Amino acid sequence: MDNDMAGSGTVNERAPDGDRSFEAVRDRLDMSLREAMTTQRSVRRVLSDDVDDDIVVACIELALKAPTGSNGQNWEFVVVRDPRVKGELAAQYRKAWRVYGGIGERVTAGDEAMARIIRAVDWQVSHFEEVPVVVVACLSGPGRFVPASVGQSTHYGSVYPSVQNLLLAARSVGLGASLVTLPLWNQCSARRILGLPLSVQPVCAVALGWPRGGTAPPGAGRWAMWCTWTATDGGTGVTAGPCSAEPVLVD
Amino acid sequence: MDNDMAGSGTVNERAPDGDRSFEAVRDRLDMSLREAMTTQRSVRRVLSDDVDDDIVVACIELALKAPTGSNGQNWEFVVVRDPRVKGELAAQYRKAWRVYGGIGERVTAGDEAMARIIRAVDWQVSHFEEVPVVVVACLSGPGRFVPASVGQSTHYGSVYPSVQNLLLAARSVGLGASLVTLPLWNQCSARRILGLPLSVQPVCAVALGWPRGGTAPPGAGRWAMWCTWTATDGGTGVTAGPCSAEPVLVD
Repeated sequence: MDNDMAGSGTVNERAPDGDRSFEAVRDRLDMSLREAMTTQRSVRRVLSDDVDDDIVVACIELALKAPTGSNGQNWEFVVVRDPRVKGELAAQYRKAWRVYGGIGERVTAGDEAMARIIRAVDWQVSHFEEVPVVVVACLSGPGRFVPASVGQSTHYGSVYPSVQNLLLAARSVGLGASLVTLPLWNQCSARRILGLPLSVQPVCAVALGWPRGGTAPPGAGRWAMWCTWTATDGGTGVTAGPCSAEPVLVD
Repeated sequence: MDNDMAGSGTVNERAPDGDRSFEAVRDRLDMSLREAMTTQRSVRRVLSDDVDDDIVVACIELALKAPTGSNGQNWEFVVVRDPRVKGELAAQYRKAWRVYGGIGERVTAGDEAMARIIRAVDWQVSHFEEVPVVVVACLSGPGRFVPASVGQSTHYGSVYPSVQNLLLAARSVGLGASLVTLPLWNQCSARRILGLPLSVQPVCAVALGWPRGGTAPPGAGRWAMWCTWTATDGGTGVTAGPCSAEPVLVD
């Protein structure tokens, strides 16, 4: 397990015992920004216990503070609780995972970090109906006032910042959260399952629930970025920082 | 001005006087998550004063904590300081703005909130060389292990969460920040200007600088989302919340 992370007392945290009402956890939305970001994990193994609607709304309200292209605010959030609807999304998820999970497994064979992720997704795929809340983030209508060449970027850039707010808010109140797109791989089926018009595109889904608990292994720590620092004297240098952005799992 | 926001003492904040070193502002990264999100604004009018490299690195390091599709961590951040390079990006920005700014102006005529945004972008377009730091967020290589139908979503979903971390971190230390794609509208030129290989896609840019100061008008407050709450009894309801996600400007 990751002692550094465990040392923060947050990553290997279990669901709050006893009172899990919004009133009981609301103040955790004031968690330090740095702590929320540095301890964010994809937590896929969650309890089937219910999550208070007010907590979900509070997280979505913070999602709505994020910027959108040309201030379009053309996002829509569909909150799914109905086991039947979750079951239909789970069936889609399984179809896609049978193919792409298998590919991922073969391509990343021997990579223990990826193997952990794949085991956790396997768990999520087989328990998707039991996840108490699935929030599907959508975009309605096209992007505005941008050339086609950056239209796609502006389009998705109008919902993923809000999704990250949602994930960070969930993490701060102690909810397990993970970002998935595979349950939506068949966009026609996803629209039918969710009752969305053609004008609304289901972009990604956030599965929310109280963590089953466990410990978080350390982040990959590999060098995951470079920056070209173009200096005012025209010279350039390259610097990079270790990355622990790996979505480490609560096993 | 927006008294609610001004009441938080953060939105109409000017650049810190005196010491703007990383040491002087680093503890602000521990700002309350809720405060950082609820007071995030697109602040386009910034001073040409330099921004400490360590502050930029700290913001990018937090960006690297965000999730990526299949844990690809295939992001790259190019930090531009060279006035010549900024000048070339500014020229691209102006070309695109002449067309799309004009369209936006006509389509949103009479909308004072949009008019404020357009005035601020006008300012940014004409002063882009003076912005001290421009961080270009890029994606290298294709997405992994996902069907084409959600490939685009997963692709952009692997960088925009990190960009939102960067924007929130900048906001917490008191930097003005805005997310733009127009300077990159010509992807060939953008690659040439930034010296990027074909395998690296410049996705969006974050302009960073100390705010010129001013006051922030209130958010639009319009109803910007709906949620279909699929209840366990199969019934559905619709709820919506007022949105103040408008990227309000520091004038």
